[in-house]
This record gives sequence, structure tokens and C-alpha cells, in this order.
Amino acid sequence: MEKLDATQCLRLVSEGVIGRIAFVGRYDITVLPVNYRLVDGAILFRTTHAGLADEDLRTGIEHAEYQVAFEVDDFDEAAREGWSVLIQGPAHHIGAGSDQAAALAARVDSWPGGEKDQFIRITPVRITGRRIRQVP
Amino acid sequence: MEKLDATQCLRLVSEGVIGRIAFVGRYDITVLPVNYRLVDGAILFRTTHAGLADEDLRTGIEHAEYQVAFEVDDFDEAAREGWSVLIQGPAHHIGAGSDQAAALAARVDSWPGGEKDQFIRITPVRITGRRIRQVP
Repeated sequence: MEKLDATQCLRLVSEGVIGRIAFVGRYDITVLPVNYRLVDGAILFRTTHAGLADEDLRTGIEHAEYQVAFEVDDFDEAAREGWSVLIQGPAHHIGAGSDQAAALAARVDSWPGGEKDQFIRITPVRITGRRIRQVP
Repeated sequence: MEKLDATQCLRLVSEGVIGRIAFVGRYDITVLPVNYRLVDGAILFRTTHAGLADEDLRTGIEHAEYQVAFEVDDFDEAAREGWSVLIQGPAHHIGAGSDQAAALAARVDSWPGGEKDQFIRITPVRITGRRIRQVP
């Protein structure tokens, strides 16, 4: 098991399309996969307003400094190898204005489709990663 | 986006080999991938004692009812389809005794190798899942 530095981590994250956001609601920890893009060093993903499926996330994000975790990984089951990156930091809802225009321009995908007009940005504060390689 | 019931979720989870445990430490939420097996309806994974890499997880688990989340998913990037399951519940360290013998017998894998002699069990309290299919 090898540790990855922040630069290596962000390079790997920049090539991914699905990550998992983890956040703490009133009662539970929740982890949900989302389509994302790395834009200007931050994680950007889309959601609906009604459907910020989880009310806890919506409520949390509306109250400014809401700490979340975001995980991206890629494993090869046959080779028993792979890597994972963990990004920790605050999540913010991107309101109307230039930030939203930039988010729209970044064309962040969302496989489930629908009216996903809300953007969430996660600003990395701590970036850690690890790689597993099998030694022959 | 289709919701999955608990039976569908556990069937999918029973076929997986990598899941992601999320837990809250003193300061941050942490999400880490682990090799696991579903044994008697519970999630079982191995770790080292020193290396329960994260001190927060070790400390939390030693204090009984430590709530965690465990996520398993599988996505097909080309088809833009896939599923995810979220298991929420308490995590317990499995001490010496018959439980540990059963855990050893289950032969839970660990790709990074090394002396992974500690077993953690997550008892599902809430099981939810979703599947994304592209409608032609």
C-alpha cells in the first residue's frame, strides 16, 4: 500500500466521472454516488432542488460551512489492484450569478437526467489517497 | 431512477468484493474502500490493529455503538447505468471467541495483504438502494 500525494490524487480525480459524497444528517451518515467534474481544483456536481434527494444534505448546505467527504476510486478485481482518493472539505450550494454560469459552462454530467439545476461545490481542504499494487 | 428494496440490495451486495466504509472521526468524515463479505446478513471486513488506519475508527469501534455507513455500487460508464446500495448501522470489533472463529472461517479477503487479524462487523439497520437505467 502506497500513499499518494495531493497532486497525484487530483490527477486521478480529474479523470473520473463518479464519486461518492458522504455527509452527516440528523441521525445517520449517508454515502451516495454522484457524477462529478473537477473544475478549478474543486469538485462540482449537480442535483435537483426537490431532489437533493436527501433533505439533510439540502439543509446542511444551506447553512454555509457544511463539512463533507468525497471519495473516488478505481479497482481492478482481477489484478487485486487499484487506488482511492479522499477529499474532505466544506460543500456549498452555488447560487445564481457568475459562479453558476461557470458551473453550467463546465457541463457537469448527470446520468439520471431530469432537471438537475442545482450545483454543489466541494472545496478540498484535505486530499489523501492510496494505491494498492500486488508485488510479484 | 428506481428504488431497490432491502432484498434486492442484499443480493447485489452479496456479489460484491469492495465497499466503502464511512465514519465520523473527531474532526472529519472519512470514506475508505475495503474488501468485504456479506456473512449472515452482516458486512464483515478485516483490518490491522495498528492499521485500523484511522485512529478515529479504532477509538469509535472500541466504544460499542459506533454508527457507520457502508456503500457498494457498480456502474457501467459506457451505458451510463448502474446501482448503489447504502447500509447504515453500528460497527463492532469482533473479539476473540466463537464470533472470531466464524469470521476466520468466512475467509474475508484483503487485497493489501499483511497481518489483518482484526475483524469488524457492520450490522445493517437501514438498507436502501437505487438503480439508474437509461430509457431508450
